[in-house]
Amino acid sequence: MLIALFPGDGIGPEIIAQARRVLDALAIEGLTYEEGLVGGAAYKAVGHPLPPETLDIARRADAILFGAVGDPDCDSLERHLRPEQAILGLRKALGLFSNLRPAKVFPELADASALKKEVASAIDLLIVRETNGDVYFGEKGMRKTPDGLREGYDIMSYNEEQVRKIAHQGFQAARARRGKLCSVDKANVLETSQLWRDVVIEVSAEYPDVALSHMYVDNAAMQLVRDPGQFDVIVTGNMFGDILSDQASMCVGSIGMLASATLNDSNQGLYEPIHGSAPDIAGQGKANPLATVLSAGMMLRYSLGLPEQADRIEAAVAKALANGARSPDLGGTMNTVEMGDAVLAAL
Amino acid sequence: MLIALFPGDGIGPEIIAQARRVLDALAIEGLTYEEGLVGGAAYKAVGHPLPPETLDIARRADAILFGAVGDPDCDSLERHLRPEQAILGLRKALGLFSNLRPAKVFPELADASALKKEVASAIDLLIVRETNGDVYFGEKGMRKTPDGLREGYDIMSYNEEQVRKIAHQGFQAARARRGKLCSVDKANVLETSQLWRDVVIEVSAEYPDVALSHMYVDNAAMQLVRDPGQFDVIVTGNMFGDILSDQASMCVGSIGMLASATLNDSNQGLYEPIHGSAPDIAGQGKANPLATVLSAGMMLRYSLGLPEQADRIEAAVAKALANGARSPDLGGTMNTVEMGDAVLAAL
Ligand SMILES: CC(C)[C@H](C(=O)O)[C@@H](O)C(=O)O
Ligand SMILES: CC(C)[C@H](C(=O)O)[C@@H](O)C(=O)O
Repeated sequence: MLIALFPGDGIGPEIIAQARRVLDALAIEGLTYEEGLVGGAAYKAVGHPLPPETLDIARRADAILFGAVGDPDCDSLERHLRPEQAILGLRKALGLFSNLRPAKVFPELADASALKKEVASAIDLLIVRETNGDVYFGEKGMRKTPDGLREGYDIMSYNEEQVRKIAHQGFQAARARRGKLCSVDKANVLETSQLWRDVVIEVSAEYPDVALSHMYVDNAAMQLVRDPGQFDVIVTGNMFGDILSDQASMCVGSIGMLASATLNDSNQGLYEPIHGSAPDIAGQGKANPLATVLSAGMMLRYSLGLPEQADRIEAAVAKALANGARSPDLGGTMNTVEMGDAVLAAL
Repeated sequence: MLIALFPGDGIGPEIIAQARRVLDALAIEGLTYEEGLVGGAAYKAVGHPLPPETLDIARRADAILFGAVGDPDCDSLERHLRPEQAILGLRKALGLFSNLRPAKVFPELADASALKKEVASAIDLLIVRETNGDVYFGEKGMRKTPDGLREGYDIMSYNEEQVRKIAHQGFQAARARRGKLCSVDKANVLETSQLWRDVVIEVSAEYPDVALSHMYVDNAAMQLVRDPGQFDVIVTGNMFGDILSDQASMCVGSIGMLASATLNDSNQGLYEPIHGSAPDIAGQGKANPLATVLSAGMMLRYSLGLPEQADRIEAAVAKALANGARSPDLGGTMNTVEMGDAVLAAL
């Protein structure tokens, strides 16, 4: 089984190195690795954030372990050359449409959230975000109005097939958890949302065991602060999912702990921490590698069919925390390698 | 000066009645009132959520004091007949483009937030949201894809004139406050946001005394949880502003306390509480009227040029709270009229 390793920018290489150590320690037979350039690092080396060689590795791989992209040096490049295009391009080229972002508080870290402890402790939710459509991938550009004014535009849309696919992901995830699915849209304003809501309701007929509710996105943003414990699975579109999943992860408090998976129809997946490239602390050994280690765990579970090895990783991370492993973002002083050591010791 | 009173649905009539009592107690000379039907109430009475008679009152008025719209009975109506169209229609017809939503914790209520007290207490921000453009008002509809699939679409766009106008509002508000403006967009993905960012930067040349920063909307949703005290004024588009302003108001904790204003070029304005019509408690005297009372205060300040009377209302609300006035949403037992009494006693 081939794993593509795409470290990317900023702290990416440091955190990927620790995840690789943990994978190596599991001594799983038949795993091979290929590294590829993505993001600002790829642009600087070969002039494009997602070079053809990288895309080729990605296509051949069973799974991609991704660090982070984002580099202030690239801020003034044209859009198609910016680091973010690596992640958008991979999602589109490989049909990675189902982005899963679990948010759950580690008991040891319940104090880290800006939310009151009793509110934060109740968080155990999964956001299922569509990542192949919506206003992200519609026609877009700059044009002139009839009066000669500059105008930027982006077309938002979803078709029934796209919604049906992600709705099934949401219902199936809810079925495997606590049986509650909340679909988030803005159907009181957007036709895209109206189609979304109609199709989610159609699909719900196949899941009589799942309790479906609908919420407007503005209300969802409120409820995620007021009482995040009310949610089990949230399914939503690309744009709203971008906002709500980042909000939810911050409610958990320790953004350095949160992993994500983005899957396509054949369970090929891209796995990455939800935090970014953190250029301000890059190369200083301050980055917390645990979100990337946990992403490697999700990879073993979802794309490589190795749930027991995934369990081992998750247990080792929990044990390392219980043993007091704390990087600076968790209020401690351990460096990136020491955090990796702590997980290895707990394995 | 003519004030249009549009109570609307649910708790709307109850809370507007208390705001009216407070306005009457100020005995301001020359104020006249006309009532109009909006929302589900208007649909049920005359078949449209924003009847021509109501629009006519609105056009003639110096300011509109608005309760709330939203009625579950109307959920399955066609979009153009739903209660929300009253507010969208008024914003568009009167050119009400500048929606101001201050969020600040009342010291007496700092415990009410789901955020830790020290995080919530630091909140003192103003969201300036554009409300005449964006994906709200672009062409939208249902169509078929070439493969015959149903597809919903909505065109997102801003032109430079729209952005320039709201940017000036943001800079001026920042200048009158702590001099910090954060413009929120998604320029790494959206051309609409790229134009937004370009124009905000152009306008900033006229405000060298204001410190401008830019933030992606996903990061803004995180920062509003992590450290909302970092913000002074946030300026953003219609869609992102909808989400972030509701999130910010919930960070404050007591959503029954938050007022808003939406102004046009001639300072005609619509004033409303940010909470909704709360059909579940309508007619029971449980609604907190203070957000509407404070909205009346904003109306005196922004549209009627009566800042001293506005100060009196704000001081009376603060005093009523200090005296222990608490409706159920604030953990107390006072009914809607008693809350109004408490403000009148403090005036
Ligand atoms: C980098 C950016 C384009 C991306 C997105 O908006 O999808 C990121 O914020 C994410 O959520 O993965
Ligand atoms: C009712 C709805 C159309 C409206 C909006 O989305 O603008 C509301 O949520 C608001 O924020 O005033």
